[in-house]
Amino acid sequence: MLNRPTPALLDQFAAIVGPAHALTDPAATEPYRIEWRDRFLGSTPMVLRPGSVAEVSAILALANAERIAIVPQSGNTGLVGGQVPDSSGTEIVLSLDRMTRIRAVDPEGFTLTAEAGAILADVQKAAETVDRLFPLSLGSEGSCRIGGNISTNAGGTAVLAYGNMRDLVLGLEVVLADGRVWEGLNALRKDNTGYDLKQLFIGGEGTLGIVTAAVLKLFPRPRGQAVAFAALASPADALGLFSAARDRAGHDLTGFELMPRIGMDFVLRHIPGTRDPLAAPAPWYALMEISSGDSDETAQATLEDLLAAGFERGVVQDAAIAQSLAEAKAFWHIRHGMSEAQKPEGGSIKHDVSVPVAKVPAFLDEAIAAVEAMVPGCRPVPFGHLGDGNIHFNISQPIGADKEAYLARWEEMNALVHGIVATYGGSISAEHGIGRLKRDLLPGVKGPVAMAMMRGIKDSFDPNGILNPGKMLAAKE
Amino acid sequence: MLNRPTPALLDQFAAIVGPAHALTDPAATEPYRIEWRDRFLGSTPMVLRPGSVAEVSAILALANAERIAIVPQSGNTGLVGGQVPDSSGTEIVLSLDRMTRIRAVDPEGFTLTAEAGAILADVQKAAETVDRLFPLSLGSEGSCRIGGNISTNAGGTAVLAYGNMRDLVLGLEVVLADGRVWEGLNALRKDNTGYDLKQLFIGGEGTLGIVTAAVLKLFPRPRGQAVAFAALASPADALGLFSAARDRAGHDLTGFELMPRIGMDFVLRHIPGTRDPLAAPAPWYALMEISSGDSDETAQATLEDLLAAGFERGVVQDAAIAQSLAEAKAFWHIRHGMSEAQKPEGGSIKHDVSVPVAKVPAFLDEAIAAVEAMVPGCRPVPFGHLGDGNIHFNISQPIGADKEAYLARWEEMNALVHGIVATYGGSISAEHGIGRLKRDLLPGVKGPVAMAMMRGIKDSFDPNGILNPGKMLAAKE
Repeated sequence: MLNRPTPALLDQFAAIVGPAHALTDPAATEPYRIEWRDRFLGSTPMVLRPGSVAEVSAILALANAERIAIVPQSGNTGLVGGQVPDSSGTEIVLSLDRMTRIRAVDPEGFTLTAEAGAILADVQKAAETVDRLFPLSLGSEGSCRIGGNISTNAGGTAVLAYGNMRDLVLGLEVVLADGRVWEGLNALRKDNTGYDLKQLFIGGEGTLGIVTAAVLKLFPRPRGQAVAFAALASPADALGLFSAARDRAGHDLTGFELMPRIGMDFVLRHIPGTRDPLAAPAPWYALMEISSGDSDETAQATLEDLLAAGFERGVVQDAAIAQSLAEAKAFWHIRHGMSEAQKPEGGSIKHDVSVPVAKVPAFLDEAIAAVEAMVPGCRPVPFGHLGDGNIHFNISQPIGADKEAYLARWEEMNALVHGIVATYGGSISAEHGIGRLKRDLLPGVKGPVAMAMMRGIKDSFDPNGILNPGKMLAAKE
Repeated sequence: MLNRPTPALLDQFAAIVGPAHALTDPAATEPYRIEWRDRFLGSTPMVLRPGSVAEVSAILALANAERIAIVPQSGNTGLVGGQVPDSSGTEIVLSLDRMTRIRAVDPEGFTLTAEAGAILADVQKAAETVDRLFPLSLGSEGSCRIGGNISTNAGGTAVLAYGNMRDLVLGLEVVLADGRVWEGLNALRKDNTGYDLKQLFIGGEGTLGIVTAAVLKLFPRPRGQAVAFAALASPADALGLFSAARDRAGHDLTGFELMPRIGMDFVLRHIPGTRDPLAAPAPWYALMEISSGDSDETAQATLEDLLAAGFERGVVQDAAIAQSLAEAKAFWHIRHGMSEAQKPEGGSIKHDVSVPVAKVPAFLDEAIAAVEAMVPGCRPVPFGHLGDGNIHFNISQPIGADKEAYLARWEEMNALVHGIVATYGGSISAEHGIGRLKRDLLPGVKGPVAMAMMRGIKDSFDPNGILNPGKMLAAKE
């Protein structure tokens, strides 16, 4: 059972970080309590902003001894409510936003060591400075932080070639629930000495320990790139184009994103400065990016080959290859606008699902028909990372419908879509995680054996249940 | 506390699999009790060869209820004694060697589902049949089995481009200590629903559960390859060549192996049919392999570029590019003979270590000098996967020395080398695992916090300690 911190105990916590870094004023704590889309509005007696591992350790040792809930937070950009306190006013927020140091960059060893509060874009830049690539790329990269990227096993558009955040972490420094520090900042490519403990903290949503720093993998920067926008008749044709591209280009296929025409319409209507790259509308689009260790010309030649073969096989209807870096950016801008452009169209019921890659077309057919039958006139806008089998299956409300009435059917529509996902052996959270939003759905999709293993791990790592209670797993009674 | 199985209990175990598959005759159990290099000679009252997941489950449920030790085994090719019973005669061996089915191959989805007893080479072939690549490649691939590859997180020569076994597993089916079956045969590229439980069983050495099947990742088969043997003055030059190759070829650099001249001498002397690819001897060699999604010509052009640039920079002294598939195989044959060729040279004290890639040259300088100072006249033959920082740091005995007297210094020399490894933040087991051989070294290299986490996980998954006791972690008292 957790306790509500007393004023005297809050003073003790504040003394660890110094009064300037222990926020209690509601206006000051608001950015840490409120999820950015206003879906989760939390309350907290105090936000602690430690400046060192030692301070994080001292905070957790005290919290564990006194049974005080700690909610770790880095960039507060999560989409499932994993990073915000509940409304009880008893949970202390521990923000990593002062621990932003990039401790080391090793271009020859292809590694970078960053603290958990380092902003993703800053890590990307630090890698670029030494002619290396840190490939993780997300819409929120200007504000999300490495600790959150690790704790949510972030995905994004570069997963196809470089993997999720899980694949980009070599070592971790973690403060455990009772304040002990695990010095796991390993920079090795191979290490078979015992259980791979870091894997539990990656995607662990701060429920098993607080990541304070990480050794990240760097990659050679591609010497050349080429980007195309291709018009397609169907997701099945997109899959055909993807398979051919993967066969031919292998790891040089660094992007393959699927978008529907309605998403393009929304973007052209609502995102300033966008224009359709193609002359005539098409039912579906693929954004393809090819990278090369050699040159832009090599990448472009590969891309042209692929598109020409696609034309011949009849899977590509039309295509435009970006003729400049600015045009390539404009193509990506359309893709990155897909989510934002749905907002002005009214309520949108969202899903972050994955199915085996080869099943994406069948899943889309079935799921689109099902939601249209459930809410006649609704407008499915499924888009995303076809090459990973990850579709953001968002459905905008019918034109002119009542937004609140439509959004009231959120759980009903989730149940319908997730039921179809289950028949394909898919996932109800491909990249956003579980947090609070999907916590109560988890037992149904994982089954009792997996849930028992998870609970056993949680109890072993955090016997008092102080770390991010109620996220991913139900809080201890 | 574990029990010795009574004759009546052995009958119960035998009844689960049928008498034909419950071996008790010492001659019949010998291949399952004896480690292939005769370093670990075990004893067992019974070898059980279940034919299904249900039988594995029934065995574990009974063993857990009766507190009987179970040693899971697949191909019995491990190098650290993890797969053989101890000498007490109380441990039952559970062999997966009848569960060899490849359950499904999905070329479009780039996945293959195999049972734990499937031989690695058969999995490679099944992938090839549908024009796909399963990249894991080991010296023992003709006899090692997928379950062991998973439980030891196997490495090999393709790690550089495709990762360890950990990176090649999408989903697992696992029987837990009490017989419950975890149906985790997920074929998804992205799934962020809870802790990534499969990671614990990968590299878990059968101490947390018994893997019975896995969904594995397949890859496009390279359309072309080129292989070169390059003569180098030093490991530092090898690192320079590697860095340039990785920059230029990225993921197309699918092999980069380092070998010393003495290893070449041993191979030419002891491995029939080998010949030196180069006219004059050189202190060090790199075997480089470039793959291409396009053609042999493309791969060869890249390789020629790289070697030409290496000549210009003075890091490559001489080089031979394989002019045929047979010649490419002959180059690889030299590399694969490195270990075997040491045997006729007398005793060899071995290490499977890794350090950060950029530190390999400094580590080699220091470690070679140290062992030569400790045993004057000893002959270091360090070779291996430079691109992974993984060196098989083997030291052959001085010419004419007494083999047993030399091998008696095994632990002393291990301590010396591992001490140097530690100063580089390296690993004492890069790819072979811990098993029984390195179990007592583990606490020293992991530290108390990691050991406590490991023990907590073990106790949560296997509270009675029946699964592979005394491997990786000390058995419960």
